[in-house]
Amino acid sequence: MIRSFLAEDIGTGDITAESIFLPDQLGEGCLVTREAMMVVGVNDIAAEVFKLQNQAINICEGVKDGTMVEQGTILLRVDGPVIDLLKAERVALNLLQRLSGIATLTARYVEKVKLYPVRITDTRKTTPGIRMLEKYAVKAGGGYNHRFNLTDGALIKDNHIAACGSIAGAVARVKENIPHTVRIEVEVETLKQVVECLESEVDIIMLDNMDLGTMTEAVAIIDGKALVEASGGINLETVESVAKTGVDIISVGALTHSAPSLDIGMDWTSCHVNEQ
Amino acid sequence: MIRSFLAEDIGTGDITAESIFLPDQLGEGCLVTREAMMVVGVNDIAAEVFKLQNQAINICEGVKDGTMVEQGTILLRVDGPVIDLLKAERVALNLLQRLSGIATLTARYVEKVKLYPVRITDTRKTTPGIRMLEKYAVKAGGGYNHRFNLTDGALIKDNHIAACGSIAGAVARVKENIPHTVRIEVEVETLKQVVECLESEVDIIMLDNMDLGTMTEAVAIIDGKALVEASGGINLETVESVAKTGVDIISVGALTHSAPSLDIGMDWTSCHVNEQ
Amino acid sequence: MIRSFLAEDIGTGDITAESIFLPDQLGEGCLVTREAMMVVGVNDIAAEVFKLQNQAINICEGVKDGTMVEQGTILLRVDGPVIDLLKAERVALNLLQRLSGIATLTARYVEKVKLYPVRITDTRKTTPGIRMLEKYAVKAGGGYNHRFNLTDGALIKDNHIAACGSIAGAVARVKENIPHTVRIEVEVETLKQVVECLESEVDIIMLDNMDLGTMTEAVAIIDGKALVEASGGINLETVESVAKTGVDIISVGALTHSAPSLDIGMDWTSCHVNEQ
Amino acid sequence: MIRSFLAEDIGTGDITAESIFLPDQLGEGCLVTREAMMVVGVNDIAAEVFKLQNQAINICEGVKDGTMVEQGTILLRVDGPVIDLLKAERVALNLLQRLSGIATLTARYVEKVKLYPVRITDTRKTTPGIRMLEKYAVKAGGGYNHRFNLTDGALIKDNHIAACGSIAGAVARVKENIPHTVRIEVEVETLKQVVECLESEVDIIMLDNMDLGTMTEAVAIIDGKALVEASGGINLETVESVAKTGVDIISVGALTHSAPSLDIGMDWTSCHVNEQ
Amino acid sequence: MIRSFLAEDIGTGDITAESIFLPDQLGEGCLVTREAMMVVGVNDIAAEVFKLQNQAINICEGVKDGTMVEQGTILLRVDGPVIDLLKAERVALNLLQRLSGIATLTARYVEKVKLYPVRITDTRKTTPGIRMLEKYAVKAGGGYNHRFNLTDGALIKDNHIAACGSIAGAVARVKENIPHTVRIEVEVETLKQVVECLESEVDIIMLDNMDLGTMTEAVAIIDGKALVEASGGINLETVESVAKTGVDIISVGALTHSAPSLDIGMDWTSCHVNEQ
Amino acid sequence: MIRSFLAEDIGTGDITAESIFLPDQLGEGCLVTREAMMVVGVNDIAAEVFKLQNQAINICEGVKDGTMVEQGTILLRVDGPVIDLLKAERVALNLLQRLSGIATLTARYVEKVKLYPVRITDTRKTTPGIRMLEKYAVKAGGGYNHRFNLTDGALIKDNHIAACGSIAGAVARVKENIPHTVRIEVEVETLKQVVECLESEVDIIMLDNMDLGTMTEAVAIIDGKALVEASGGINLETVESVAKTGVDIISVGALTHSAPSLDIGMDWTSCHVNEQ
Repeated sequence: MIRSFLAEDIGTGDITAESIFLPDQLGEGCLVTREAMMVVGVNDIAAEVFKLQNQAINICEGVKDGTMVEQGTILLRVDGPVIDLLKAERVALNLLQRLSGIATLTARYVEKVKLYPVRITDTRKTTPGIRMLEKYAVKAGGGYNHRFNLTDGALIKDNHIAACGSIAGAVARVKENIPHTVRIEVEVETLKQVVECLESEVDIIMLDNMDLGTMTEAVAIIDGKALVEASGGINLETVESVAKTGVDIISVGALTHSAPSLDIGMDWTSCHVNEQ
Repeated sequence: MIRSFLAEDIGTGDITAESIFLPDQLGEGCLVTREAMMVVGVNDIAAEVFKLQNQAINICEGVKDGTMVEQGTILLRVDGPVIDLLKAERVALNLLQRLSGIATLTARYVEKVKLYPVRITDTRKTTPGIRMLEKYAVKAGGGYNHRFNLTDGALIKDNHIAACGSIAGAVARVKENIPHTVRIEVEVETLKQVVECLESEVDIIMLDNMDLGTMTEAVAIIDGKALVEASGGINLETVESVAKTGVDIISVGALTHSAPSLDIGMDWTSCHVNEQ
Repeated sequence: MIRSFLAEDIGTGDITAESIFLPDQLGEGCLVTREAMMVVGVNDIAAEVFKLQNQAINICEGVKDGTMVEQGTILLRVDGPVIDLLKAERVALNLLQRLSGIATLTARYVEKVKLYPVRITDTRKTTPGIRMLEKYAVKAGGGYNHRFNLTDGALIKDNHIAACGSIAGAVARVKENIPHTVRIEVEVETLKQVVECLESEVDIIMLDNMDLGTMTEAVAIIDGKALVEASGGINLETVESVAKTGVDIISVGALTHSAPSLDIGMDWTSCHVNEQ
Repeated sequence: MIRSFLAEDIGTGDITAESIFLPDQLGEGCLVTREAMMVVGVNDIAAEVFKLQNQAINICEGVKDGTMVEQGTILLRVDGPVIDLLKAERVALNLLQRLSGIATLTARYVEKVKLYPVRITDTRKTTPGIRMLEKYAVKAGGGYNHRFNLTDGALIKDNHIAACGSIAGAVARVKENIPHTVRIEVEVETLKQVVECLESEVDIIMLDNMDLGTMTEAVAIIDGKALVEASGGINLETVESVAKTGVDIISVGALTHSAPSLDIGMDWTSCHVNEQ
Repeated sequence: MIRSFLAEDIGTGDITAESIFLPDQLGEGCLVTREAMMVVGVNDIAAEVFKLQNQAINICEGVKDGTMVEQGTILLRVDGPVIDLLKAERVALNLLQRLSGIATLTARYVEKVKLYPVRITDTRKTTPGIRMLEKYAVKAGGGYNHRFNLTDGALIKDNHIAACGSIAGAVARVKENIPHTVRIEVEVETLKQVVECLESEVDIIMLDNMDLGTMTEAVAIIDGKALVEASGGINLETVESVAKTGVDIISVGALTHSAPSLDIGMDWTSCHVNEQ
Repeated sequence: MIRSFLAEDIGTGDITAESIFLPDQLGEGCLVTREAMMVVGVNDIAAEVFKLQNQAINICEGVKDGTMVEQGTILLRVDGPVIDLLKAERVALNLLQRLSGIATLTARYVEKVKLYPVRITDTRKTTPGIRMLEKYAVKAGGGYNHRFNLTDGALIKDNHIAACGSIAGAVARVKENIPHTVRIEVEVETLKQVVECLESEVDIIMLDNMDLGTMTEAVAIIDGKALVEASGGINLETVESVAKTGVDIISVGALTHSAPSLDIGMDWTSCHVNEQ
């Protein structure tokens, strides 16, 4: 995957760098934060970008995933052929900036609910192509992952229910067909549906866009007989009050679809002169 | 590319939908905006996702790229096998939401400078893997593209200059090596460097993180002998004053790296009952 | 995937057929069983092989998956360019024969336990590269699927337990890290371990290579508080007695790793003469 | 190819192992036979699976291909990061078990005809996707390979002959079109066809489903002027009597399409405890 | 393969055409020869390039492979979206020009030896990546193919012989290991080696860089007991005298490695005006 | 890319070498020129072919790109497993021979115009699949590259102009749509068009198939206000007189589409005997 990112950014060559440097000229640089953040992806992702560009690039172990750092922190030190450092730089930064943005936002949500026994989870609203990286960033930020794809979790929604005529009907069909290793979750909007879910012995009940009062009632009705997930438009202002209702899981699409990139740059400590 | 996005989201199958629906059951739905936005990607990208999931899905031509729409606007109507509509839904939405977010943000920048003869352009700070789509969204929003990759534009930065000892030295090397079809741009921080650029007859001078006063001076010195690009930390508050300095191009990384996704959903108008 | 199978079998061309037939000569043939069997893969897989070789091949809808047929049954009728029929023939047959072998063997296991409320499931002991097809054949034969891969089910085995010091320790770590949408299964060998599993509230307990007496005891102890899976060396002779112990699931590796291919051939009803 | 097998089995991660072990924890294990067999694929294939999963896994040279071993034999010792050993284990075993099954079955056929100057060969009835591995196993078992694909051998069958009106016509066309480096084989069912083949100076005559008497006659008629291959439904009971007829080659589809997997497991000698 | 050729030529878009034409504007053009030539690749290759660029391009069946045409001949007429015609044009022409160059050169060799019962064949000295196309062009030009790759023909050369100590030793090893469907060819430089080949009953003897006298002697010694191939530096001046020696096959590397491209262009008959 | 070239040449294995040598037997050889030439691709391309075939092959640094060498020059010395040397040999040679042919031809053109301040450039008339390698060879031969693909240079041709009604119209559209980092070139056939180009302030004017007199006039009219490129049927006989007209760039399609391969072979200095 990273190889294709490099190809996307490099095209058929870096015409600037290749004009100026010889292939064997060396350079050294550091990835440095330009603002405070929780970083993720330094050793496993950014370093990998440099390594895949050229095995000969040396990398000093950098800041661990999930570390909160100040502006001006050196995240990673790399040295090797200048041309390859320049070719890898932008892709490494683009990934680090985005993933650290996700981890930092996740950490803010987690901080808000730290007094409650609740998980903050991501959703499938991720950037196409880099879901695994984004879900990794959510975990680094203290969050949890929801299902990775349509195979590793059954989630029955309103149109599934409508097609079967009832929650009971939909759950029965799904139970009969899926591996026994996967849980069944049902998305509901009313307390009546909550009761139907309990009658069908589903594993997880997702309360979709419920107000806080109804949510609290739902939690009471469910009473530990299923996991309870709150979902739908929850933000940093509302997340704590949702946690107070006693739900087990709060899923937040914004973690991955709207976290802004954070500012990280590359400072060159050495970039050897080209004596042709 | 879209095939790999579908594979990422679907895994080895949609265990929920495949339990409930038969392969030949049909459904119909619409992609609908949940907030006002400039949309992009409806006919070329979202429709393509559905088509690639199953050629048998019918698609009514939807809203054109670059259209400003209200909340509640139907963007696209699709009908076909329910299972495939469900498998394609999330990927189509994830792309549309992100790209429309970029176009909408770009349009806001463009609006701010509409009285000035200046281009708002993107940068290489895009999401790895979907740069072409994101740059397409910038154009739909009224912006322009900067170079696509390291091959189709020469951009000489501080470390290139340092390596060669002078702007003149760096420009000479680059001129000697690159195809004559590509322009040479130099990133400068001082007026002294601006003068050196003019002496080296570069095509484009990028004023990096300059204050407005210096920028104005630079534009006067350059006096049409090269294109002038302003870059570095320019935002919606400052973009108009930058435009006033008379630069030709303003490049804004935030267009692609920090535009939030906008809210679009799928409404099911029909989802046939499964009479097994 | 099927494209790569065709490439594997065809190499750089069918030197025999291409010497004898012209590209536009037509032929017609039928896939016919040479022994009784439960067939699977006719319409979705074998037909797809012909279609991918050449879109111009016509295919008459064939026998449905999971149908029990006699020797001499016509499964599928195809007509089109002879060269392409010949190029697709072997791959289509190789897949059909293997998958029908799996479905037929599965159906024999299912028949043995038809009086008991128990699932026969496959395992991960599949042929590398075609797991999805093999698991599909198991379902067609009346069986169920176990997890598809290491992501969509947590299965704690002896070495995991040893590493953590206890079942409780292992379960705690896994619960803390996996998505809430996936169940936790633990593989045990003793009744003491069964009790530990119940204390840790695992979702599924796998009784590995237990004798029938112990298995019966285990089922009694578990008493519906977890799903019970029997595993390890169960064959057509023993499967019914295992079912009698009251377990919920019986997983059988042999379904996919040792089902012999069944005999299916292609009969040519027409193969036009080449008037060059 | 092996990378895709690993991807198939691992999905997006081993959620169990990754919950329990840290990436740098080490383990050690052995692949051990659970029954007697001729092994194949230890050093070139199973070891490669571990290496491709993680270059850091150490591998002690194991049992050579084509060795007959007892139950309980250690085939290969591996040590390295536990998570990666666990991720590679199943794919390595699935391949070893299947290929050793093929080699062992081949060796039984070879043993049956050891007194005769005859080759036991495979056919194109292999598992789609892993033909090269399966043909390699046949050679390890003492057998020989038939053509690998439709390009590296010309085999004229009944429908080719019918299309051309005669064996002579078909052979002439094929001779005129194929590279001179490849032999021409013709499949026949009658002695009359055998004579026609000799008149057309074909290189190899395949006697398809002939009874032993006719086969003996055919061998006498051919009298060394072409290679003779016997084919069609030959099994362990009949192979010796076929060899007695004096044919040069006996091809057996069952070698690859119906050899059962043999039992091989992984014993963990060390699996370091996770002190988080 | 053709898709990758298009990607290579198009990059991320045709910035010229996409600036000028709308996606739905239509055009029409013809591929026309600018000199006399034997054409190859019109209907199967050039047409395919246009089709793969856009299914909506219409193609009128063009000149058949192996046709000798004059300058100014229309080879193929295409119409459809202008942008896609322009994107496909260069790749289609590059392939046609190169392949027609090969066919035309081959035809000249074939013409030179038309009175002799000898095959002109290609070698493995082809352009990496397009061997199949180049070998196809050789056949269209009246030549024959040598082996396609290292698998579909055994060719024993001097270093193989040296490694085994003798031709007999090398042949024995190869016979024992390769499929019986493939012929054995040995490359020799002396008459003594020719005799050794006959003693080892090889199928084909390649006379490498022999003078005409020795070659004639070799043919006499072989006397039909093996096919005879002449190879090494044979050109249009010498090919007829080589044919006169009585060899069966003359292989010529220059057919594929040094045939110049011939001149073919695209004439636009209609290119609709863009009324934006 | 090189991996696919190896796969193309090797097929499923080298049946000759694998019959004769064991995998661990070693050999040593040299790539040697059989005629004088300017070599290119020794260290970056040929060496890479051997390395990708087997990492264990040792390579002594060879002759630098762009060196003029005599017949009989050792270009590269390689040693390692014989089987892998043999598998890599043909692909390495095929690439070296073709690229050195291009560099040598380019050098001849460059030599012809060495007294003039003019660039010899390639075109897009390259071999599909290996454009980057061929353009690299042109640079090694002292030439320059034209645009790599349709994205990194805007070239307005006659049909673009016709579609827009005028050069001015076409240039305006292109300027409005392409990145500011890329130059605009216009292909013209008359002096009137030259003037129109100057009025539209294009960056480069391509004089297509102009006679020398008109070309000289055009250069005078342009007078440094744009770069001037001569194109169309220029050959070794005419290139100097074209250079004399004062153009800045001469593009020559023949550099890549018609350079003959030069003769390079592999001499085996050691090829260990196989003591089985």
